[in-house]
Amino acid sequence: MTFRASVLTLYPDMFPGLLGTSLAGRALEEGAWSLETKNIRDFATDKHRTVDDTPAGGGAGMVLKCDVLAAALDSVADGRPMLAMSPRGKTLTQAKVRDLVAGEGAIILCGRFEGFDERIFEARDVEPVSVGDYILSGGEIPAMLLLDACIRLLPGVMGAASSGEEESFEQGLLEYPHYTRPVEWEGRTIPEVLRSGDHARIARWREERAREDTRLRRPDLWDAHGERSGQSPSGAQRKK
Amino acid sequence: MTFRASVLTLYPDMFPGLLGTSLAGRALEEGAWSLETKNIRDFATDKHRTVDDTPAGGGAGMVLKCDVLAAALDSVADGRPMLAMSPRGKTLTQAKVRDLVAGEGAIILCGRFEGFDERIFEARDVEPVSVGDYILSGGEIPAMLLLDACIRLLPGVMGAASSGEEESFEQGLLEYPHYTRPVEWEGRTIPEVLRSGDHARIARWREERAREDTRLRRPDLWDAHGERSGQSPSGAQRKK
Repeated sequence: MTFRASVLTLYPDMFPGLLGTSLAGRALEEGAWSLETKNIRDFATDKHRTVDDTPAGGGAGMVLKCDVLAAALDSVADGRPMLAMSPRGKTLTQAKVRDLVAGEGAIILCGRFEGFDERIFEARDVEPVSVGDYILSGGEIPAMLLLDACIRLLPGVMGAASSGEEESFEQGLLEYPHYTRPVEWEGRTIPEVLRSGDHARIARWREERAREDTRLRRPDLWDAHGERSGQSPSGAQRKK
Repeated sequence: MTFRASVLTLYPDMFPGLLGTSLAGRALEEGAWSLETKNIRDFATDKHRTVDDTPAGGGAGMVLKCDVLAAALDSVADGRPMLAMSPRGKTLTQAKVRDLVAGEGAIILCGRFEGFDERIFEARDVEPVSVGDYILSGGEIPAMLLLDACIRLLPGVMGAASSGEEESFEQGLLEYPHYTRPVEWEGRTIPEVLRSGDHARIARWREERAREDTRLRRPDLWDAHGERSGQSPSGAQRKK
């Protein structure tokens, strides 16, 4: 089954962009996913093709008009989840990505300027989604990011290149650190345990490092998964 | 002063990509920022131009070699911050973006496969930075995201289009919702207060909505800024 993506944007020429190359590009050619873009401006109703207007109540910038956005959404709506890339949304997680990949695709609305007229979220079943706590010039890069996260999980795309199960966040933890040859480099050696051939010991070391790095670097993630992760991590403070 | 970006990647053709268009593209043409890309593969030392090898201790995927990464970083190192896009890093915030913009630029290392040999972080002053809790096929989209967040804050780039001060996260809160004409659409009207012309009342309503939406949608953000935000938000439960 093909994962069908529809992207609504004022900059359709930005797509597929880098999603047309590498892993995502091959998957696109092979039909694992499909991409349709719609120019929001094509749904404007006046002769000037107006898509935005000044904010009610005053303030800087321009707001995307709800009537134009609704017409654009309605043109592709077919039951697939509708997402609007917006810093006002809930933050994207790997669990959300997995939910989307289990479905038929996604309709993704990219904002620009000051954002969307809020009524679009009341009048249509469109969910605001944020990729993180920072501000970008538009929703196009977040849309690519979301699609890239989905595409790599589609059946057959990653192949045996990665299990996908031991990656960061799949277990609510950061992934353990990696090492590869040369064994010694600039006086630094690969940790002995990883060269021991003792698979049980290697697995324990990796879990311990995953837990330790999560606790030290991402206390928010550590606390959020505190109950699930059971025992407390190694008490050793690692210097970095 | 030009913000100088150097991107180290296995896919230099992906850049500038959509950063060559729209706001970022105009800023690039006008010299507000500059972009240099280096192909990590050019720093391989064997005849096969090998950049990766199997993980020490076993497991799926390939790991980027520290000797090749170090040579690539050393070729552009000049005191600018060096960042490696990695899900194992601290999560990017708007405050971090502002820090970067205050400097001369950034050197950005894009990973692929299973990631970087961890020794690169010990041997070079390179900071792992994550854009969020999800897994992507590589660091190229995160690098574009980071650059886009920086570029819009460079002097002269946004112009008067947006104040930048009232956006989401700048105050530790989501931004308030926006509305624009038409006043009535599908039976939904712009909130009366925004049409009142009473600027003090509008400002109070917006702050209240910013606080309420943050509390309901992003309890993590709300709790993190609980002390700073002082009084508790309006007790009204908003239905959505």
